[in-house]
This record gives sequence, C-alpha cells and structure tokens, in this order.
Amino acid sequence: MTAPFPHRHLLGIEPLSKEDLLAIMDLGDRMVEISERAIKRVPTLRGKTVLNFFSEASTRTRTSFEIAGKRLSADVINLSESGSSSEKGETLLDTARNLAAMKPDILVIRHSASGAPHFLARHLDCAVVNAGDGMHEHPTQALLDCATIRKHKGKFDGLTVSIIGDITHSRVARSDILALNKLGARVRVAGPRTLMPIGIESFGVEVFDRVEPALKGADVVMVLRLQKERMAAGLIPNPREYSRYFGINPRNIELAKPDAIVMHPGPINRGVEMEPEVADGKRSVILEQVTYGLAIRMAVLYLFAGPPPDEGIG
Amino acid sequence: MTAPFPHRHLLGIEPLSKEDLLAIMDLGDRMVEISERAIKRVPTLRGKTVLNFFSEASTRTRTSFEIAGKRLSADVINLSESGSSSEKGETLLDTARNLAAMKPDILVIRHSASGAPHFLARHLDCAVVNAGDGMHEHPTQALLDCATIRKHKGKFDGLTVSIIGDITHSRVARSDILALNKLGARVRVAGPRTLMPIGIESFGVEVFDRVEPALKGADVVMVLRLQKERMAAGLIPNPREYSRYFGINPRNIELAKPDAIVMHPGPINRGVEMEPEVADGKRSVILEQVTYGLAIRMAVLYLFAGPPPDEGIG
Amino acid sequence: MTAPFPHRHLLGIEPLSKEDLLAIMDLGDRMVEISERAIKRVPTLRGKTVLNFFSEASTRTRTSFEIAGKRLSADVINLSESGSSSEKGETLLDTARNLAAMKPDILVIRHSASGAPHFLARHLDCAVVNAGDGMHEHPTQALLDCATIRKHKGKFDGLTVSIIGDITHSRVARSDILALNKLGARVRVAGPRTLMPIGIESFGVEVFDRVEPALKGADVVMVLRLQKERMAAGLIPNPREYSRYFGINPRNIELAKPDAIVMHPGPINRGVEMEPEVADGKRSVILEQVTYGLAIRMAVLYLFAGPPPDEGIG
Repeated sequence: MTAPFPHRHLLGIEPLSKEDLLAIMDLGDRMVEISERAIKRVPTLRGKTVLNFFSEASTRTRTSFEIAGKRLSADVINLSESGSSSEKGETLLDTARNLAAMKPDILVIRHSASGAPHFLARHLDCAVVNAGDGMHEHPTQALLDCATIRKHKGKFDGLTVSIIGDITHSRVARSDILALNKLGARVRVAGPRTLMPIGIESFGVEVFDRVEPALKGADVVMVLRLQKERMAAGLIPNPREYSRYFGINPRNIELAKPDAIVMHPGPINRGVEMEPEVADGKRSVILEQVTYGLAIRMAVLYLFAGPPPDEGIG
Repeated sequence: MTAPFPHRHLLGIEPLSKEDLLAIMDLGDRMVEISERAIKRVPTLRGKTVLNFFSEASTRTRTSFEIAGKRLSADVINLSESGSSSEKGETLLDTARNLAAMKPDILVIRHSASGAPHFLARHLDCAVVNAGDGMHEHPTQALLDCATIRKHKGKFDGLTVSIIGDITHSRVARSDILALNKLGARVRVAGPRTLMPIGIESFGVEVFDRVEPALKGADVVMVLRLQKERMAAGLIPNPREYSRYFGINPRNIELAKPDAIVMHPGPINRGVEMEPEVADGKRSVILEQVTYGLAIRMAVLYLFAGPPPDEGIG
Repeated sequence: MTAPFPHRHLLGIEPLSKEDLLAIMDLGDRMVEISERAIKRVPTLRGKTVLNFFSEASTRTRTSFEIAGKRLSADVINLSESGSSSEKGETLLDTARNLAAMKPDILVIRHSASGAPHFLARHLDCAVVNAGDGMHEHPTQALLDCATIRKHKGKFDGLTVSIIGDITHSRVARSDILALNKLGARVRVAGPRTLMPIGIESFGVEVFDRVEPALKGADVVMVLRLQKERMAAGLIPNPREYSRYFGINPRNIELAKPDAIVMHPGPINRGVEMEPEVADGKRSVILEQVTYGLAIRMAVLYLFAGPPPDEGIG
C-alpha cells in the first residue's frame, strides 16, 4: 500500500469508496496465494491481537477470520456470547470496553443488533470489523463476492448481477448491492413481494417479482439463503412453494448468459433456494467464494491492524 | 527475579507473604508495558503449555488468561466443562490427571467447588493457578486490585479500603481482604447482614451495616457485584431495595476522600450496586483493573511456568 | 522416515499394514520425548493448518489433537457442531467442502456417523484423520494402546490381550482388535452376550461370556467404558449387576499374569467396569495411555500434514 488506508474501522460497505473496495480486493488477490503455499503463514501480524467476538453462531465466518488471523501470525482469541458475561446481563458496551482494556488491535464482531459495530467503534480505541450486524451489513461478504466476480469477469462495468431471494432480511444483499453499485455493475433483485423491502428501487436496483426475467441475460446470479424463520413468520408459504417460484434450477439458470456464474453465501438449503445440480454445476463458484472469503479477511486484518510501516506481507 | 519465587502453585492469597505479593505486582507493572507495544508478544514462554480449565462460565477471566499466555508465546488450550468428559460422570481428579498426562506446564482452573485447585495441586505435577474456586479465593483478582490501588495511591500503609456488598459469597472480597491486610491497608466492609459472614471481625476488618459510615473518608471504594442468585435465595428483597441502601451513587460517593478511587471486579449490574454515573465517572478505575488483570496474569504465568533461567521477559 | 508413508488419510486401522502401524508407533516413541523438554515445541508443522472438527463432545481427544498440533507449531482451529452451520441443516459434505476451501492441511474429524471420515476423504483435497466415527473405528486410540503395550511388553508375538466389556458398540474395541491381530497378539474378548456382536469369532478373537476365563493368564487387560446409554436400551440390567459380573476388581485381576498391565480408554466409570483399586493400582498404565495418545497424534499429524522434505522433527 502506498497511501495509508483512509478508514480506522470496517463497519460496512456504505462508507467505502470505489477505490477503497478495489484496494481491499487487490490485497485480497495477493493473500490468496499465501494459502496455496506449503507453509501457509507469514509473520506480518506477529504480536497483534485479534478478538473474534461472535454473539450469533457462525462456523464459517468465525473460522474464516480465525484462520485469516493465524496465517498472518496474529494471536486470535475467540469469544462467544454463550458462556460470556452477557448471560450475567452486562451491556454490550461494558463487555466491549472490558475487552478493549486488554489492548486488542482488532475486534471482529458478529452481532444480532444492527449498528452494534458502529456503536462500539465510537467508544473503543481498537479497530472494529463488522462480521455481520443484524439485517444491516456484512461487508467482508460483499468484498469476497466482488473479488470472486472480478476473478471470473475481470471487470464490473456493464455486468448484470441478479440477486435472488429474501432481500428484506439479508445483510448480504444489502452490502452486495452497495458494493456492486459503487463498482459500476447493474444490479437486479428478485424475490417474493413479502421479502422485498419497500423503497428498494431507491437503492439503484432493478426490481422483479418473478425470477425468470431477473435471470435473463445475467452475468452473475447470486442466490440468497432462505431463512427458515421467514416461514414461521408467514412471509412465505413453504419451502416447496418457494422452490417452485424462486428456486434456481438447471432449467431457469439457462436464461442467464452462457458464461454466467452462480454464487451463494452459504450454507445452502439444497432443494429450496437452489437445486444441487446448480450448486455443484459448472457455473458454481460457491467454493471459490469461501477461498476468497479467507483472503479478503486476511486483507482486512492486515489493513486494520496497523502493520509496522516497514513490514510487508511477504 | 533474583531469588526464585518460593511457591509452586498459586492457590490463594492466604499462603503468600507480603513480599510474594509485591514481587508479583512488580512483575505485573513490567508486563503492562508489553501490551502497549506495537508488537505485543515476547518469546518468554515459547514451548510452554497453559491449560485453561474453566468449569464456570467466565469470558473475562478466561480471555485474560488466554491473552496473557499468548502474549508470552505460550501454547494456550481452553477447556470448558460443557462438552467435556465431566458430562460423562468423570471425577475432577480423573479429568485433571488426564490433562496432566499431556504434560502441561500450568493448569489454570476455575471451579465451582471451593478447594478444587488445592486438591489438584496435591495430585498433579504441573503448576496449578486458581482462577476462582467457589466462595473461597480468587487470587489474581486480588493481585490486580492491589496493583491498581498501588498505581493510584503509591502505597498501602494508612490507606482505607471499603468493600461494599455481598461479603459472604464473594471470593473476590475474601482474597482482597487477605491481600490488603498483608500489605498494610485498613479494610472496611459494609453490606446487608444477610450477606455478611458470621465472625467477619476476625478477618481484621471493620464491619458496617450501613454504607455511609463505611464510605466516609475512604481512599478506595471496592464495590462487589450483586449476584442475582442471592435474591432468589431470599437474602435480599429486590434490586431496587438493595440499590437504595447499598448502591454507590454520585451522592454517597462524595463521602469518600476527594481523591478516592472506585473499583468493581465486573461485570457491573448498572443501577443495582453502582450507578452508571459512578461507574463511568472520574473516580472509576474499573477499566484499569482489566488492564492490570491481564498484566498480573502474565506475571503469574511467567512465575509459575518456570522460565528457562537465561531468558528474560524481552 | 526413509520411505514416504503410503497413505494420504488415516481412516482406520483396517487399511494399514503391520509395517504402517510400526512406523507410526516408532515415530510416536520419538514424539514422547518432545513433551518432556522444557521447551515443548518444534517448528515442524509451522504454517500448516489443522482443523479439529468434532461433532461429538470429547475433551480428551480434541485436547490431545490440539496440543499435538501446537507442539509441532501447526495452526490449530477447533470447530464443534454446536454453534455451527449444521444447526442450519447444512449437509456434512457442504460443511466439509467449505472447510476444505480454506485450504487446511489436515481435517481431524470425530463424528457420530460411521464412515463419515471415509466419505469426506473421497471428496476433499486435504488429509482426513478419523478421531472416532460412530461404532466403526478409532485408529489413534488403537495406535496409542499398542504403543503403550509395546513400551511395557516389548513385543506383540505371543501376548494375550483380553478386551472386556461392550464389544458391539465400541469403536475402540474394533480398532484395537484389528491392530493387535495385525501385530501378532492373541486377542480375547469378554462381555455380556447382549453386548457381543454376532459373528465376532470371524474377527480372529477368542470369545468368552464370563470374565474370569478371559482374564486367566492374560498379559494385557483392556477394560472398555460402559456407556450409560446401553442401560437405557435394556442391554444390561444396571451398573451394579454389570460390575458384579464384568467389573475388574482387585480379586479377579489376579487371574491375569503377575506382570499383566491394565488399560482403559477413559473416562472411567469407577466402580462400574473397574474398581478404583485397579484403576489406580500398580498394574494400571491408564495415564501412560494418555501420554502416548498425545505422542501418537503428534506422529499422525506429522505424517499426514506432508512435512517439507528437508525438515526434521528436531
């Protein structure tokens, strides 16, 4: 990095510029290579402390940040809400201040409350990285999605990206829309009306209430996970109905461009939002997303831990 | 350290001399600085194994020991009782002997049974560090409390330290009283009679059944956490009543000396044993306690892991 | 190692030759010594990533693999099923593929489904180590048992090893029988008929339905844990009855050779399958089994992580 990265925290995609996004993605591309070495560890963040504070269960994202930190030689400490002092009724701010008093360099936080990372960033000295807050943002997911798209498409200008599913409750959708817009892609969204936020048009997306026109001619198809809680809440009738109208299958995916790629943030409900033939098919880049997820998180930890000026990632 | 530390285990404050306490605190002062470096890691305990065995939930203390071990380059392994073989009915001794057969250097144990660390120390080869046993002792808490007091007051002789709250059930109170007495401070305790142990006077403390006289002229006010279990047991009527008679608030804290400091072992029940204005006010050293907690635990791991004679703390 | 180890995965004892078993045990013997040093860490697996994926609770085995990895300087990441995406209904294969996309070198898996490690080994690029799968195999347990026997007896030819307890449901019994047969020992099994698999004779063992003749003249007595679930299922009447007929006690153990050793995979139900006087007696090598468990797991991680050709375990 020639110029220092102009942000102290990674709270969302919203505050980042196109240049910021590209800088993180560029660094992510360099990080991919480290995980392909026989010795997958560089000393870059030696002596830095990363606290992984997850108040919602998430094997993937927590593990991804943990491996990212360890491959950069950071000390990584995992904390989950269960078994923590939150059971004793402590406020989030007290918990976080206590953690901060142990002088971590980065607090990675996953929290069910939208805005929790922003709240902490205002009160803590260390860098705060949002690993998913409520229905708000999930910036590292958007960055890994964009890095995966760039790997396959080489650009964003002129690309059509169709996001299919529960747009209302998805922090992934929200962060992806923000990032793709900044990067110059055209974004379509499609899903049941009950899962489409009011005023979604103002996000700069084209809105469809059927999946077929949304898929037509798309370069990238991003399929969202259908949370089972949405059924309990009566927002969709049942998985079979959802699958029939909004599931991605070997037939409707052919409406996309011949070289279109298919993405999913995982974990997949096979047979609900996506058929196994698509998830495991030649268009699927879902496992590459995981690989980029690790690389982007390495890039993010590197950028926000404040590396000593004279040390590289080599 | 010129003379070797004369104890193999840290089971409580009770077996330690004033000189022992001061030696640990001195080393803790030196450890504080490591956590303020850009590279917060020294190689002192490289190749040493620290087992963190916590049978009671405790984010703070477990995290503090984990970070302490990692900043000294030890290998730290966390074990919690849930998911362990204690579910299978194994005795504590069998569990501990099994852990010891893996040749750890230090077993850090938090256990609900008073005396559990002492029992293990009699049967295991490795050093045992008590991280809180039942209602008995919590020696690293007392050491961090004393280190924080010394930082602010510079001495113990002539100081008046008032401990407010549930004295009966508090291992923190017990260890603090022992340590402060050895170090030469005068200790007062105040709390509801139902939470004051019979024969407390024999501990060498002045006992009050109202908070105001206990606060009057105090140099240090240590407020204990009110465990909700005490209400269920009928020992106090309800949080509001407790707060009214024993809560520390912006008015009664003025009874203490103008430069008195306020401490709390955390997590705080804001509005119960302490008002937010006090917890976050200018007298509060609560977050410094956390910082010293980490430093003291680094000192303890250093002293009890048996460092190679020719290696320093970097 | 002069010749490379001829297996990519450690799925069970069944696919291994006598030479493979001896090679792992030889390496294990060398690993024992590392844990006895003042600095218990060698750089052998620096930059290698070990994923500990345990879908069944197991403090001992998980801790043993974790310490093993850390003493070899690997990065070890623990994953448990609770709090993971399996709660979200993800298939084991999707979970594992996602983990594999983060480029671990070794996936250590404990799973309740027999064959789960084999299934993953067919689909993943990284090495898979079976840490216990259902009622199928537990190869590192058999290797550590054999290493412990060899330490005490110096050989396998001509030895009589008696395995006592629930043979049907025990992956430990299964793996031990396979290993001991390959190594040339004579194996006896004894247990209630309800806990003895049909066709057990075809395993090359001598079968007893009473414990006394099985113990007579034995060199090694391996006592299995009695799972409480077997009582719930009505397969045995109650612990007291079981203890009376199949428990190992100071009297019946005298039927074995004067220098016979007693083993147990832990955790022990004291007073059920074994009396405390035996568990803690002079014949017991139970804690040595734990020490060898760590050493064997170090050997296994070393062999299957694919060490750089020019690095030793020095």
